[in-house]
Amino acid sequence: MLATDLARIRAEAPLVHNITNYVVMNTTANALLAVGASPVMAHALDEVEEMVGLARTLVLNIGTLSPEWVEAMVRAGHAARHKGIPVVLDPVGSGATRLRTTTALRLLEEVGPAIVRGNASEIASLAPAAGAAAGRTKGVDSTRDAEETVDAARAVAARHRCVVAVSGPTDVIVGEDRTVRVRNGHPLMVRVTGLGCTATALIGACAAVNPSALEAAAHGLALNGIAGEIAAERAQGPGTLQLYLLDALHRLTEAESTARARIEGL
Amino acid sequence: MLATDLARIRAEAPLVHNITNYVVMNTTANALLAVGASPVMAHALDEVEEMVGLARTLVLNIGTLSPEWVEAMVRAGHAARHKGIPVVLDPVGSGATRLRTTTALRLLEEVGPAIVRGNASEIASLAPAAGAAAGRTKGVDSTRDAEETVDAARAVAARHRCVVAVSGPTDVIVGEDRTVRVRNGHPLMVRVTGLGCTATALIGACAAVNPSALEAAAHGLALNGIAGEIAAERAQGPGTLQLYLLDALHRLTEAESTARARIEGL
Amino acid sequence: MLATDLARIRAEAPLVHNITNYVVMNTTANALLAVGASPVMAHALDEVEEMVGLARTLVLNIGTLSPEWVEAMVRAGHAARHKGIPVVLDPVGSGATRLRTTTALRLLEEVGPAIVRGNASEIASLAPAAGAAAGRTKGVDSTRDAEETVDAARAVAARHRCVVAVSGPTDVIVGEDRTVRVRNGHPLMVRVTGLGCTATALIGACAAVNPSALEAAAHGLALNGIAGEIAAERAQGPGTLQLYLLDALHRLTEAESTARARIEGL
Repeated sequence: MLATDLARIRAEAPLVHNITNYVVMNTTANALLAVGASPVMAHALDEVEEMVGLARTLVLNIGTLSPEWVEAMVRAGHAARHKGIPVVLDPVGSGATRLRTTTALRLLEEVGPAIVRGNASEIASLAPAAGAAAGRTKGVDSTRDAEETVDAARAVAARHRCVVAVSGPTDVIVGEDRTVRVRNGHPLMVRVTGLGCTATALIGACAAVNPSALEAAAHGLALNGIAGEIAAERAQGPGTLQLYLLDALHRLTEAESTARARIEGL
Repeated sequence: MLATDLARIRAEAPLVHNITNYVVMNTTANALLAVGASPVMAHALDEVEEMVGLARTLVLNIGTLSPEWVEAMVRAGHAARHKGIPVVLDPVGSGATRLRTTTALRLLEEVGPAIVRGNASEIASLAPAAGAAAGRTKGVDSTRDAEETVDAARAVAARHRCVVAVSGPTDVIVGEDRTVRVRNGHPLMVRVTGLGCTATALIGACAAVNPSALEAAAHGLALNGIAGEIAAERAQGPGTLQLYLLDALHRLTEAESTARARIEGL
Repeated sequence: MLATDLARIRAEAPLVHNITNYVVMNTTANALLAVGASPVMAHALDEVEEMVGLARTLVLNIGTLSPEWVEAMVRAGHAARHKGIPVVLDPVGSGATRLRTTTALRLLEEVGPAIVRGNASEIASLAPAAGAAAGRTKGVDSTRDAEETVDAARAVAARHRCVVAVSGPTDVIVGEDRTVRVRNGHPLMVRVTGLGCTATALIGACAAVNPSALEAAAHGLALNGIAGEIAAERAQGPGTLQLYLLDALHRLTEAESTARARIEGL
């Protein structure tokens, strides 16, 4: 249950190691702190393996890539796999440039993340049959809908033996034997940069305390969506939404998380 | 008209490719999303040309330089010029260190931006006769007034055949045959980091939909100033101003933009 | 007196040169602007010495390291020492990985900062007798209490002839002949990323106008704590706390700073 994950995150404050993009580092760290986890950002080749050794989840996000960062992600990913902690991948902008698509696929192949979360365009670009049919990611924004990407998500999940979460007005999460939908969230959230990245980090926090990757993915997306809904009730626009969302994550009670979660198929 | 640019940005959501500094990446992305554009940040040498291929404007900002980033800016700038999309340059800190002045001048020479926006000290440092007379930029803050920099701005505009916008209490924008002034804004805005960078990004959004570089520069500065004025009406200080400004950009109607714009000479 | 430092910062707007981590750059710049200082961020090897030449304090923060940034910190530190301006070091995550501990120790040895500010785990990791007894930093969060680290802080202060400030519910600041305690702050502050880094930057602003390193350290911590207390009075959670804290720094009067400061031993 979502409430169980929330309670455990707050009780255990799991260390979530993020190698993520410059745009969202502050927001991501704040979202993890607000929900009760303990974030750390570290990307130096000389320290990522050691930091993974302290962490309970590794979150890899390719939003602002450069070659050294790709190597750090691979190295940290190997360490996480060796240690047996879950890796969550956010393939930001996959499908927009070859570097991003190639890097996301390399991380899928070499690191074997437990969970991948992206928007529809990003996930479509990772499907084995991708190419002309996949359409193209517009920078980091999706040009597709989550529901029309379910087949692609299933193909990625089967090929890489991982849970695939496609964000959208309804989030679709594809597991080995089930498809889960999360209907939380608010339309204004797409006007704030990096809330997809926040969702990925929250999935990381849930994965630290919940051995089911499918549940962790659904719970992380629900947490993000619920906090966005609460924030939108009093936000005047995307600026205040961003901050009220952090307040909401911090104040969310277990009972409220249960009452508000709109998770189907779990 | 400003309202026309605003309507087109919202209707078309142009992709604005930013190679910008670490300090403002989040704020810049959020301002572009708030106004209705679609931001992307990408700096890897391996992907900047491809990302420019998807974009409608390229914004270059030298606020936190390193050699690889300079090369990425030059490469992206060449691609933008080849493709025929406008480049907007923000020479943050030019005049403070040789690296910054040299890089700004190199980008002016090699990339040929359509628009340059800086504070008075930065623009003065770029004038052909700069040197002892230009004074010195204090870090990234100006030690001069926009009005006393009009001659320097004209010299930069003539030499590099571009529009030059000098930010200040009154913004002065120098075009080929006209000088435009924008009197929007609020004194508290200088207490928030990167609102000059936000103005540059908003100029980029306008340049994506308006072929007149002079109009795009004036409209971007007016948008930033108007949003700042609205935000200042209820802000308690620079912290809330930053967020309310994003709310204001998002909520600004075309009618309100027309009523509030204080643009002279266009 | 704290009020004197505050008045001088606002009157002189000292340039504070920060080489800091990606997570907090925006927050740090905004806190320095809010209090009245002039921040600049510059890390390129080609410009750090020149930027130090314009600055009145250098703040080094190792929160997101890479080899080039370490070299830039050393180079800037040497320039600051040569010029005679104070260096303030924030050893973020020291004790969590060898890279961080080694880098912090190298900066202590080679640069000789006037002030070091960290949490208890970080400071403990820097003590000459550190090792098994020091415990281990959990990412960037402390696993110890400030009061139980006083001996370690004294050892660091004696060895490196600097002021050592240990943040916690009560901040402990160890000088050559005195130990000062600051009892300002609010528990919600640990749920916002980088407020320790903000404290370090505010110490940097005070050190620019106050030749006593011990006073500057106490005053910077008090400023941060007071602003946090004021912000917590109306914050709904960590999101709004972060912004209200900037508002509070901006609005804090000298009289209010005197009335609220809870500094003992100075």
